[in-house]
Amino acid sequence: MSEIQFSDIQVAAERTRGIVRRTPVFTSRTFDALAGACVFFKCENFQRGGAFKIRGASNFLLSIPKDDLPRGVVAYSSGNHGQAVAIAAESLGTSATIVMPADAPALKVAATRAHGGRIVTYDRASEDREAIAQRIAKETGASVVPPYDHPWTIAGQGTVALELLDEIPDLDALVIPIGGGGLISGSSIAAHAIRPGIRIIGVEPEHGNDTLLSLRAGERIGVPLPETIADGLRAGKPGALTFPIVQKHVEDIVLVSDPEIRDAMKFLLMRMKILVEPSGAATAAAVMRGKLPPGIPKLGVILSGGNVDPECLTEPRA
Amino acid sequence: MSEIQFSDIQVAAERTRGIVRRTPVFTSRTFDALAGACVFFKCENFQRGGAFKIRGASNFLLSIPKDDLPRGVVAYSSGNHGQAVAIAAESLGTSATIVMPADAPALKVAATRAHGGRIVTYDRASEDREAIAQRIAKETGASVVPPYDHPWTIAGQGTVALELLDEIPDLDALVIPIGGGGLISGSSIAAHAIRPGIRIIGVEPEHGNDTLLSLRAGERIGVPLPETIADGLRAGKPGALTFPIVQKHVEDIVLVSDPEIRDAMKFLLMRMKILVEPSGAATAAAVMRGKLPPGIPKLGVILSGGNVDPECLTEPRA
Repeated sequence: MSEIQFSDIQVAAERTRGIVRRTPVFTSRTFDALAGACVFFKCENFQRGGAFKIRGASNFLLSIPKDDLPRGVVAYSSGNHGQAVAIAAESLGTSATIVMPADAPALKVAATRAHGGRIVTYDRASEDREAIAQRIAKETGASVVPPYDHPWTIAGQGTVALELLDEIPDLDALVIPIGGGGLISGSSIAAHAIRPGIRIIGVEPEHGNDTLLSLRAGERIGVPLPETIADGLRAGKPGALTFPIVQKHVEDIVLVSDPEIRDAMKFLLMRMKILVEPSGAATAAAVMRGKLPPGIPKLGVILSGGNVDPECLTEPRA
Repeated sequence: MSEIQFSDIQVAAERTRGIVRRTPVFTSRTFDALAGACVFFKCENFQRGGAFKIRGASNFLLSIPKDDLPRGVVAYSSGNHGQAVAIAAESLGTSATIVMPADAPALKVAATRAHGGRIVTYDRASEDREAIAQRIAKETGASVVPPYDHPWTIAGQGTVALELLDEIPDLDALVIPIGGGGLISGSSIAAHAIRPGIRIIGVEPEHGNDTLLSLRAGERIGVPLPETIADGLRAGKPGALTFPIVQKHVEDIVLVSDPEIRDAMKFLLMRMKILVEPSGAATAAAVMRGKLPPGIPKLGVILSGGNVDPECLTEPRA
């Protein structure tokens, strides 16, 4: 695949404008005092669909050849990516089929249906969701929308950093969560094009440290599907396309535990009055706990999403 | 007391700028579809201290004669007003004494202390908090900062509408919660000066309808201290100063129940990812439930605060 250029991200920003929301940047004096730094939170929890995923999904759909788009799109995800694909398809007047496990939460099924998404369920134990999506694509001519490991998706996610640096140009570092690596790949390409010296710090859950292990090994390493409340960061292995980008652009990866994530969620909710999902609060947790390299005065921190299960609020386990 | 002019509110906006935060205006396609209107939420839950109260408190402190301010200020409130006075005093380099019931929640005591506020407790059953505040004022030369019924406070609160109409100039109506009436008084003076035809709708809790009863009677009527989760709207009687302003400017008052408020809080949290306290969500509840007069296409809705007791989140009673 061809290398992703900054211009791809600029084009993505331009053409997704009618679908993607420009999210606000928040600050908190109390957080700054805790962190010993000036922190600018890019609030993708306020994004359409509740997470940054709509950026990559809509850029992907807008990149599909004009003759193919009417045949629809298909994605396999019970989470933020599935909902984003449904919203992007609805916005562009095409159909979306979302492959979800039969036991997916009713709330997520309803949210996807509300945007006109057709749901196909599968049995986690016996079936392979990717194979199902490929079969649907073959039968219907629909395009499969990958969640992270594709240049169109990555270029779309890069618009997060583009917007943030447009608003706060003199940041010293960006702190970005890593699941499959689409967000950090696109964002670091954009950030280094705009501001070559900016430092990029990735954040992974303690038990989902596949990208950190891979960086150390110099090759992609898989870990067992991690147990963590940060469900959006539960990729078991870096992407084939995202990993070399991470190798090139990311200075370091720091790890956070589930209790640290819960504490950060609580601070964001009770003090800053914003609801951020565990995967989104991982970055804030890393900063709050002083896990970053010292001496970075001005930080951009991406809060990647806000889709929290209601149980996670009503049964605090912290 | 002299009548409050629009220029008083403009002056307040100018001089409180270094203390008060210009809060963002949020929108939601899903809420608009539910409401059948274009709704612009003025998010005072993101204000310093978590509520609009800092506007009135800081304008009050800035209006105190220069020789008196060093002697400090005193307020009686275990809620948002007390915290706002502590923050305003800290920002202006003077001392604040906050009179609170001995059984005030530890969290609120801590929040007030964090801003350097001195706490004086009293026994709810046997003591009068206003008398205690007056005695402290007399002994120390400190100025008492009233929560709503004072021209300086009202002018400060009016800056909410000033900012909102500066950002969204063509609103057809404002929807504003009523406790003591400071917020709606200041805001309606500002709104009618900027946009004479704008409609002002007040919102009260069902069991705290003292202002609605007073409007109907043409004089100030008291109700027993109401039982409602909207603790900030639990004034038992309109203010002597605020009531004639409400009579002059407010078209109608609509009532919301506690379950309606809880539903609105849930929508704001789970769909819009923002934490709004019950008193702040009362306006959103009124709009969601179709309680407004019909045919208002473009609404400004004030979400007045976001200081929610943790129990209110972990034990949903809806």
